[in-house]
Amino acid sequence: MSVAVKALAFDVFGTVVDWRSSIAREAAAFFSAIGRTDIDPAGFADQWRGLYQPAMEECRSGRRPFVRLDILNRETLDTLLERHKVAGVDEARLADFAFAWRRLDPWPDAGPGLTRLKARFPVVTLSNGNIALMLEMARRDGLPWDAILGAEVTQSYKPDPRAYLGTAEILGVTPAELCLVAAHHSDLAAARACGLATAYVDRPLEYGGRPAPDRHLSQDWDYDAASLIDLAEQLGC
Amino acid sequence: MSVAVKALAFDVFGTVVDWRSSIAREAAAFFSAIGRTDIDPAGFADQWRGLYQPAMEECRSGRRPFVRLDILNRETLDTLLERHKVAGVDEARLADFAFAWRRLDPWPDAGPGLTRLKARFPVVTLSNGNIALMLEMARRDGLPWDAILGAEVTQSYKPDPRAYLGTAEILGVTPAELCLVAAHHSDLAAARACGLATAYVDRPLEYGGRPAPDRHLSQDWDYDAASLIDLAEQLGC
Repeated sequence: MSVAVKALAFDVFGTVVDWRSSIAREAAAFFSAIGRTDIDPAGFADQWRGLYQPAMEECRSGRRPFVRLDILNRETLDTLLERHKVAGVDEARLADFAFAWRRLDPWPDAGPGLTRLKARFPVVTLSNGNIALMLEMARRDGLPWDAILGAEVTQSYKPDPRAYLGTAEILGVTPAELCLVAAHHSDLAAARACGLATAYVDRPLEYGGRPAPDRHLSQDWDYDAASLIDLAEQLGC
Repeated sequence: MSVAVKALAFDVFGTVVDWRSSIAREAAAFFSAIGRTDIDPAGFADQWRGLYQPAMEECRSGRRPFVRLDILNRETLDTLLERHKVAGVDEARLADFAFAWRRLDPWPDAGPGLTRLKARFPVVTLSNGNIALMLEMARRDGLPWDAILGAEVTQSYKPDPRAYLGTAEILGVTPAELCLVAAHHSDLAAARACGLATAYVDRPLEYGGRPAPDRHLSQDWDYDAASLIDLAEQLGC
């Protein structure tokens, strides 16, 4: 790269935390509590994640004003529970389950890797998660963000260019001085189209070992790392 | 208080960091470098701070759209230098001096106090400083914010009610569950008018030992602390 990176912005779901195992764990507890152990928790996690992009697309397309992810997660949960004919669950339990996305476990290298990277670079989120969600997750998982940026601050969901360019602008750096760190080729491709630097982190277990749906979008990224520790070493941190 | 506090939001300039000594130090270096040691650095700090409220008022009143504090600080610096008949300084030096507000020293209890408070409560900024400014200051001073909120995220300057209410909404708490921590009675009064809990921290040296301009606005705040360490003890942290 010809321009020196001045800050690192991280995708979070999948890149920093293991959403699938964590949601499956939360789903297992929920279905057990309501006596519906016939529903497969890992499959439910995949289905819930599957409703994520269509829900955000309503906002990206302008058909709906920006609403934060906590609200979309609750709506998609209600949709999915209806499909599974789950009814009559009390409101507090539903609200708590919708917040399962705040209780995702980090990949084992996440905390130590971010701490090393933070010694040299500002580390911020560039996630579609809202601020309260990211804050609670960071406190739970020991993720030392310098700032929680992304969707809610820019009022736009990735891969909308405003999410990437707005984050750079808020940080006072040029797009080329901001590096997106992500496990998703689709996210990195959108960031590169906006002029950002790109760092791929391999997360082969994100989909339970199955291939990533966006693997055909792979490119020669500026950095290609096996973990955040590996990225720290490549960046001389 | 009848409602339990769930998060702490901090005023920063004056409450967490000592703007006057720090700006005086930066001003002394700037005036020395340009051969204008006839200008009193501490007096210059007071004058620069004096232009802060009128600059924000342009945005609060709606006469001007919201612009971040970095930009207002540069404009008020230009105004003040013109008054002192300082001219011909190169752009890089001016830009660096305007960023002096990113390099303010913390009060000695700030880092340790925030760290204690953070163990029990989310700690966020509710400052008129913009995100990049607050981020650089936090990295420099070791201030462990969970999130940088306030003016830029709510697009409004305190004491506009939107700054206080917007911060509570983003955090997903009611106004009464959010406690503003500030050394300024004016700020606390505006927060209380919005329904927030209030914690006063005494900073007798903020104005170089002279009385605070808003001392007549003193009330019986929910907490009254001599330092952030004292506040941590009062909150059982």
